[in-house]
Amino acid sequence: MSGPDTNGRVLLHGYFRSSASFRVRIALNLKGVAFTQVNHHLRKNEQRSESYLGVNPQGLVPTLEMDGLKLGQSLAIIEYLEDVQPLPALLPEDAAGRARVRALANIVASDIHPIDNLRVLRYLRESMGQNEEAVQRWYNHWIAEGFAAFETLIAGAPETGTFCHGDAPGLADVCLIPQVVNSQNFKLDLSPYPTIRRIYDTAVKLPAFERAMPMNQPDAE
Amino acid sequence: MSGPDTNGRVLLHGYFRSSASFRVRIALNLKGVAFTQVNHHLRKNEQRSESYLGVNPQGLVPTLEMDGLKLGQSLAIIEYLEDVQPLPALLPEDAAGRARVRALANIVASDIHPIDNLRVLRYLRESMGQNEEAVQRWYNHWIAEGFAAFETLIAGAPETGTFCHGDAPGLADVCLIPQVVNSQNFKLDLSPYPTIRRIYDTAVKLPAFERAMPMNQPDAE
Repeated sequence: MSGPDTNGRVLLHGYFRSSASFRVRIALNLKGVAFTQVNHHLRKNEQRSESYLGVNPQGLVPTLEMDGLKLGQSLAIIEYLEDVQPLPALLPEDAAGRARVRALANIVASDIHPIDNLRVLRYLRESMGQNEEAVQRWYNHWIAEGFAAFETLIAGAPETGTFCHGDAPGLADVCLIPQVVNSQNFKLDLSPYPTIRRIYDTAVKLPAFERAMPMNQPDAE
Repeated sequence: MSGPDTNGRVLLHGYFRSSASFRVRIALNLKGVAFTQVNHHLRKNEQRSESYLGVNPQGLVPTLEMDGLKLGQSLAIIEYLEDVQPLPALLPEDAAGRARVRALANIVASDIHPIDNLRVLRYLRESMGQNEEAVQRWYNHWIAEGFAAFETLIAGAPETGTFCHGDAPGLADVCLIPQVVNSQNFKLDLSPYPTIRRIYDTAVKLPAFERAMPMNQPDAE
């Protein structure tokens, strides 16, 4: 755990499997910000410990400790990084481009991931008595709805390049890639989403994404 | 339905009860942007019509047609409004303040609303066979977790003023108030959240919020 003083270090409270932590790891890597990880085992509920609730009252990961601040919520953290260190940019310069990228990011961050994350699946199993087959159907339903829309928006668009928006990775890719990795735990068939798959195959070859992968984290099991 | 040409008008595709549409109505009102509403009855699945899928491939409301663009995702829409018409500002000028406000907005927009919205509750009822009591427990569980964190973050903070951040309404309030209104459909007890309640009582007296209320929309039932 971090004390009140991080000695000027950037600390990322996360968990190797957390998609939202994974997003922030990629963004920090892309921006070239060195950071130290403090990992909280979500399956053991370590994020609900009293000491961590002092860091993040929501008891969720990630939290980024930086510049004397304790920042929560992955998208707010990444927008902060963009504000204080604009280059390399994760958002386009034009307002229309920024709206497009933020909308793509939010398809993942608001319409897929919150419904399919660990605490929700746990509620379905433990408080609603749903079996693994029902949980898997649930998971695949929401990710398929979201990925179908995401694919439609990027497949034919002139703005789409090597990545979701142009030829450099940005906020949309930062959100998309962790969701694709997550979907592989549920063996989601990616063939209906060829553009998503193409971007995924390209992104994971970049060191910023590769180093952020769950299996490459110190707490990976 | 809108045709391809909106004749320079700003069109908001929404639904009176949709919290995400409600957010955008408030933001447009606060910014003083005149708009025409095109409403899609979510309970009749009108947002899945072929014509609307041409406007928004995700089949979700809201969509804002403005400046020749079709913008989806409420937070991305509001950030766009902030980009093209910065005043009155919905985000603070300092990066730390912006991060705080965006994090509060995301507690609602990512951690509460997606899990508690109509399409998810419908899935619980129709595809998981859950009864109304179980659906109500689900709803209240997620909103209570989110509101408890939101309350903790704003209750003692020096940044909190008449509104969530200072004395003017901003993005956090734009997200919070629709979620409070929504919670009243489920008769959520607000007494554990006195700061949320105080801000709600203040906000709904402002015309920008009052005019955006579900019951004041043309499609209200």
